[in-house]
Amino acid sequence: MIMTFHFSKRVPADGTDAVGAILKAAADPKVISFAGGLPAPELFPVEGMKKATDKVYEEHGREALQYGAAAGVTELRQLILKRVAEKEGVHANLENVMVTTGSEQAIDLVGKAFVNPGDTVLVEDPTYLCALDVFRSYGAKFVGVPMDEDGMRMDALEDALKAHPEAKLVYTVPNFQNPTGRTMPADRRKKFAELAAKYDVPVLEDNPYGDIRFAGQHVPSVKSFDKTGHVFYMSTFSKILAPGFRLGWLVADPEVVKKLTVLKQSADLHTDNLVQYVVAEFFKENDVDAHVKEISALYGKRKQLMVEGLQKYFPKSVKYTNPEGGMFLWVTVPGVDDTVALFKECLKHNVAFVPGDPFFAGKPQPGTFRLNYSNMAEDKIQVGLKQLGAALDEALNK
Amino acid sequence: MIMTFHFSKRVPADGTDAVGAILKAAADPKVISFAGGLPAPELFPVEGMKKATDKVYEEHGREALQYGAAAGVTELRQLILKRVAEKEGVHANLENVMVTTGSEQAIDLVGKAFVNPGDTVLVEDPTYLCALDVFRSYGAKFVGVPMDEDGMRMDALEDALKAHPEAKLVYTVPNFQNPTGRTMPADRRKKFAELAAKYDVPVLEDNPYGDIRFAGQHVPSVKSFDKTGHVFYMSTFSKILAPGFRLGWLVADPEVVKKLTVLKQSADLHTDNLVQYVVAEFFKENDVDAHVKEISALYGKRKQLMVEGLQKYFPKSVKYTNPEGGMFLWVTVPGVDDTVALFKECLKHNVAFVPGDPFFAGKPQPGTFRLNYSNMAEDKIQVGLKQLGAALDEALNK
Repeated sequence: MIMTFHFSKRVPADGTDAVGAILKAAADPKVISFAGGLPAPELFPVEGMKKATDKVYEEHGREALQYGAAAGVTELRQLILKRVAEKEGVHANLENVMVTTGSEQAIDLVGKAFVNPGDTVLVEDPTYLCALDVFRSYGAKFVGVPMDEDGMRMDALEDALKAHPEAKLVYTVPNFQNPTGRTMPADRRKKFAELAAKYDVPVLEDNPYGDIRFAGQHVPSVKSFDKTGHVFYMSTFSKILAPGFRLGWLVADPEVVKKLTVLKQSADLHTDNLVQYVVAEFFKENDVDAHVKEISALYGKRKQLMVEGLQKYFPKSVKYTNPEGGMFLWVTVPGVDDTVALFKECLKHNVAFVPGDPFFAGKPQPGTFRLNYSNMAEDKIQVGLKQLGAALDEALNK
Repeated sequence: MIMTFHFSKRVPADGTDAVGAILKAAADPKVISFAGGLPAPELFPVEGMKKATDKVYEEHGREALQYGAAAGVTELRQLILKRVAEKEGVHANLENVMVTTGSEQAIDLVGKAFVNPGDTVLVEDPTYLCALDVFRSYGAKFVGVPMDEDGMRMDALEDALKAHPEAKLVYTVPNFQNPTGRTMPADRRKKFAELAAKYDVPVLEDNPYGDIRFAGQHVPSVKSFDKTGHVFYMSTFSKILAPGFRLGWLVADPEVVKKLTVLKQSADLHTDNLVQYVVAEFFKENDVDAHVKEISALYGKRKQLMVEGLQKYFPKSVKYTNPEGGMFLWVTVPGVDDTVALFKECLKHNVAFVPGDPFFAGKPQPGTFRLNYSNMAEDKIQVGLKQLGAALDEALNK
């Protein structure tokens, strides 16, 4: 007898990995793919990391190789605290901060700790699709909160909180949101923190892209307006140093950090010690802010080329966001019913994107898709946008 | 208003972290603690890892720092396949193997993928307590299967499978089990694989310690007897190289690996790329089997000293296991009702262990505790056992 496996209700059914299928199709070397979400590897500080790693082996060799604390390496947690105070106006202590295995794990632990099967989670519509996958794996039902060009609308959030007093969590990406590239202004963030307190609901503020700003002014975090402990702030070293290291963190109320640390012990005991020491050491010896400026400048240049291509080659009816930072831009093509069919048409023109559908918690908005500019050479952006424009023209005039 | 957090049912209640409290109490520098479970850091191959890491930065710098595949780095997966074929008689292909963030994550993913709330999981009684924590977090009910000196009894397992046809999983540590140090002989393993097929239940075979053998003969894995795909085999580099790296793996049916890989994407996207490349490189340049022999020899010496101390200093009524490998030894003190009270008595004599209670899925066997010998200097083993013997004498004669 060969086994038939009986998976739990948390396991997605076969055929639900639409994004996996899209990325696979887009991986054909002939295709210019704007579907990915990778940082530009040519800016990875390989040499600096090598030096930092050598020093860690010399000074902390045994500690780096031994089991460590579930909350993370103290030196790295102190560095995170210093950084969130300086950059985000978040003033906290060691008991407020834990290291996670990438920011994905912070989302996972919050989902596991707060979402019982059938519980409601409020999200921006559209939102980061992997966050939807995580919350879905814990049995979440979603309520999508409408956005405008300034991100999640606070009047819509208040309506949703009134209509769903049972909501267990609000998830938000306030800076250069994935997938839309939109950023929420300060007054909205202040209101967000007030609504979280008023309706007594925790908010998970996910800020992977905030440091990568190439235009406009920095906006303080939602967490910086939080007076009641309702906001959990999370970020990562993935976009400013090295995603391969899987280093993220969460800053929250000590009770939350304590419970999530217990769950983290069950998830992976702790995060790789070596790279925790390495990143702490790297910060001592390198000007990370200067490095971040270099990344931002490159992504800003690529975004600009993409916007120029959109203006030059796309049908005039097409709308798109014009982000001030981050890695993604969001396109809306009026008159399209089936975005996946549009994707397939474009693939014939050897150009790819991620269709908008899986980013929506509720009913997808047809004709939307995400373009990535961070990991695409300048000449390919120009060629790719031209191909994509021609494909859209053809699709719209069929 | 200051927030009151409403955690999900998966979050343990406060005060349930008995082991955390014990390890904290035992961390007093005055105390000789046999409570831990760490490998001996003096044998960590720090210099070899440094060389391997330098080479990875030189040859794979950008790949190591970039996002990677959820299933893991191909070179490392190939190395794992080679190793499980040579060492464990497990013959598999790339589609059968995934890298996990420590073996803890393999347990977590299997728990998440197979255990719905209320489902039954069969475990050795006693068993690895962190596995109990993981399965409990997904709502498992446990049935403890009795052991003898040769590990889980197969007649008892068959009785349990008949009595619990609803069981979703059997979890086992067949080599030098944590906490007992017991090892299951080959005929029992063969029977185990047959019972899994007969009663159509998946078996998670967890083998963190198998390589660390200092006496007796190697026994083939349960997985090597599996003809139907019911057995999932997992192990780790933590005990032979570096636990701080958090590198484990799972070998199973392709359908299982595929589903667990989807769940892993939600857990942490993928495991740290740098240390995956580093371990693959380390194996190229170093004789890992010779290194494992060195570890085994040291642990064997320490285990021998511990057994001598037990013979010399412990009340004659005390029973203990005499493992042929691994890191732990299991003590049974007849006439003790409250093992935690015994722990507190011993702490007054500045010596500590982990009381047996949390290792039991069902009713704990009083007077049992776990001693660790891998991470204790030889002189301290002798002094500590003398103190522990005196403490037991006093407690028994109160």
